Amino acid sequence: MKTIQSDNYPIYFEDSIAELEKFVKAGNYSRSFILTDEHTSIDCLPLIQAQFAGHENFDIIEVNSGEESKTIDFCIGIWKMLIDFEADRKSLLINLGGGVITDMGGFAASTFKRGIDFVHVPTTLLSQVDASVGGKTGIDMDNIKNIIGTFTQPKAVFIADEFLKTLPARQILSGTAEMLKHGLIKDAAYWAALKNSDLSIPSAELIYRSVEIKNEVVIEDPKENGIRKALNFGHTIGHAVETNSLINDKDPLTHGEAIALGMICEAYLSHKKTGLSSDHLTEIVTVINSLYPKYNLAAANYETLCAIMLKDKKNQNGKINCTLLTSIGQCSLDNICTDAELCESLAWYAAL
Amino acid sequence: MKTIQSDNYPIYFEDSIAELEKFVKAGNYSRSFILTDEHTSIDCLPLIQAQFAGHENFDIIEVNSGEESKTIDFCIGIWKMLIDFEADRKSLLINLGGGVITDMGGFAASTFKRGIDFVHVPTTLLSQVDASVGGKTGIDMDNIKNIIGTFTQPKAVFIADEFLKTLPARQILSGTAEMLKHGLIKDAAYWAALKNSDLSIPSAELIYRSVEIKNEVVIEDPKENGIRKALNFGHTIGHAVETNSLINDKDPLTHGEAIALGMICEAYLSHKKTGLSSDHLTEIVTVINSLYPKYNLAAANYETLCAIMLKDKKNQNGKINCTLLTSIGQCSLDNICTDAELCESLAWYAAL
Ligand SMILES: NC(=O)c1ccc[n+]([C@@H]2O[C@H](COP(=O)([O-])OP(=O)(O)OC[C@H]3O[C@@H](n4cnc5c(N)ncnc54)[C@H](O)[C@@H]3O)[C@@H](O)[C@H]2O)c1
Ligand SMILES: NC(=O)c1ccc[n+]([C@@H]2O[C@H](COP(=O)([O-])OP(=O)(O)OC[C@H]3O[C@@H](n4cnc5c(N)ncnc54)[C@H](O)[C@@H]3O)[C@@H](O)[C@H]2O)c1
Ligand SMILES: [Zn+2]
Ligand SMILES: [Zn+2]
Repeated sequence: MKTIQSDNYPIYFEDSIAELEKFVKAGNYSRSFILTDEHTSIDCLPLIQAQFAGHENFDIIEVNSGEESKTIDFCIGIWKMLIDFEADRKSLLINLGGGVITDMGGFAASTFKRGIDFVHVPTTLLSQVDASVGGKTGIDMDNIKNIIGTFTQPKAVFIADEFLKTLPARQILSGTAEMLKHGLIKDAAYWAALKNSDLSIPSAELIYRSVEIKNEVVIEDPKENGIRKALNFGHTIGHAVETNSLINDKDPLTHGEAIALGMICEAYLSHKKTGLSSDHLTEIVTVINSLYPKYNLAAANYETLCAIMLKDKKNQNGKINCTLLTSIGQCSLDNICTDAELCESLAWYAAL
Repeated sequence: MKTIQSDNYPIYFEDSIAELEKFVKAGNYSRSFILTDEHTSIDCLPLIQAQFAGHENFDIIEVNSGEESKTIDFCIGIWKMLIDFEADRKSLLINLGGGVITDMGGFAASTFKRGIDFVHVPTTLLSQVDASVGGKTGIDMDNIKNIIGTFTQPKAVFIADEFLKTLPARQILSGTAEMLKHGLIKDAAYWAALKNSDLSIPSAELIYRSVEIKNEVVIEDPKENGIRKALNFGHTIGHAVETNSLINDKDPLTHGEAIALGMICEAYLSHKKTGLSSDHLTEIVTVINSLYPKYNLAAANYETLCAIMLKDKKNQNGKINCTLLTSIGQCSLDNICTDAELCESLAWYAAL
């Protein structure tokens, strides 16, 4: 599998940990820092340390795992550690973890001393096929996802499937949702290949293709003025459900579980509004429902969910904007949906 | 005075408040916010409101004035206000104030929803001739100035000398220091003109020329890899003295007062290290000392000041890097200074 060239940075797929070592050496950094959470410290950091054994001394910055940590408070903690460790402008931050780590580490690095270099070593399926590519960094605030952030590209991304061995099945499935999305919005053949694969451990080739699709889209539209909105399929409703679940559920939905639900609802809206056939709708619902557990949506929440959607940064002028499908493998941008339509799709999901 | 074209944005000097109105209308923003502090709310906001009277409704975000407010806490306050007011991606933030407001407002806007548009209406001399031009945004943390920030250009800058009428004399002098610096690093004739002017109210022409010089430098080197370092003359020592004064003094130095002191020390280092003649050194010291009160530097502080300099983001690999002069109107970048040299220059200032 070839290295993918993104917007001025390489995405490695082979011998990635060795590539990371080469990168760090060639970069002549004054200091290198690794950002981890308590899981990646144990499950992933040793692989890095083994590669570098003896050659490099890293300072480790560890934060708590999970979306609840993707906040300005943890970000301040990262900045203060960098200050305490006397990081300078020629320092490097290596983000070793899932999307929480790559998003927050990217934000912290892109604003520390007005921007130091950072690279991503994504260790969840979700962060490999989605979060680590495209230059979006961010943290949550006031229960709004990614409301604070920058567009800043990493200097490189290192994808290694070794990391997936320790990843819990539920986290694998979380990433699968984004892979399914990539097929649905852009590549019917890829969707078919996914449908017919054992998705409990997606093959390296499937991961590669997903990154390729994401990369094609973001390179064409780095700042999300047009085609990049394709990637929002399932996310208008999915993000709202995820936010709501984070606030209210003891065991909240993963990002992918929420997006899976969002894709079902938005496929329904696609059928109603943008001509998705009922065969395609049925196929999408069947595949997704066979992979993800049903989530219990309380009708009382529909209004709350719509209010959350309105606060989402993708919506403007008080209008809720959805990316929908015209068929499997093709999408349509900028479909304004009314509260009534959104509620209807949620009710439809609930009644499935 | 012509509009200056900077890095993709205009800097207006004539009818600037009317130009602001035109800009806001043409921009088709969904919402406009004005960031102020308690002084600019009273002294400056009415001029804006009079211009727009009846045509536009602004939401006002007010923060406390002064460098002590240039913190992540106030920045979070701004973000939360934007969230509460339901600012979307097509919102505009108008930064109405001195360098604290333009730096912090620029940072808040450049990171809100991964970047919304902002413009500067600088209301201090310092922010007109310096802070509002060049795309540096930032806040302080752990007593390190501008340690967190981005490089993001405003969409426009509106310079109006009406605002200077209410500015206290000490704040005028703070800005004068940067004007003197512009002459010293790049334009001997401008330095001579300043020397022979009444600087208690600098003329619009002098302000214009200062912006021109700053703009030339930053356009050539937006990210401070080379020539932009020229602007750091006086700032290595000046920033450290300013930081220390903010922590310890009841009535801390202004930025310009600290830079004035820094320029004297660094002129001394220039004489020792980069060939500044003793005539030029004497001339610089005489002009600066005639304008700024002597600051009482305790010898005990020299080491603390060097430690602060080491944390400054401009310094790398534990070395302190100064921009020095070779003559009035010409500078030399990247001069490593030892602690001993820096202490010597501080002692020399103290003994003047
Ligand atoms: N920037 C983008 O374009 C983009 C795209 C999609 C998602 N995201 C963001 O990504 C985040 C979700 O990412 P995520 O699902 O990776 O979350 P995550 O980072 O919280 O990781 C999920 C869990 O897996 C653990 N983990 C990570 N790697 C492991 C490994 N190799 N072995 C064992 N455990 C491991 C983590 O500690 C965590 O508990 C969200 O905040 C979302 O907003 C960003
Ligand atoms: N971004 C850059 O390139 C850059 C360059 C130089 C300085 N700076 C930053 O600028 C800041 C200093 O700027 P400053 O000196 O303008 O500070 P400031 O914003 O604190 O303003 C000084 C004081 O004047 C008051 N004020 C502002 N306008 C007024 C008016 N028209 N009438 C009456 N009072 C008024 C303010 O309320 C404040 O009390 C520092 O934080 C420094 O780091 C940034
Ligand atoms: Zn997603
Ligand atoms: Zn300055």
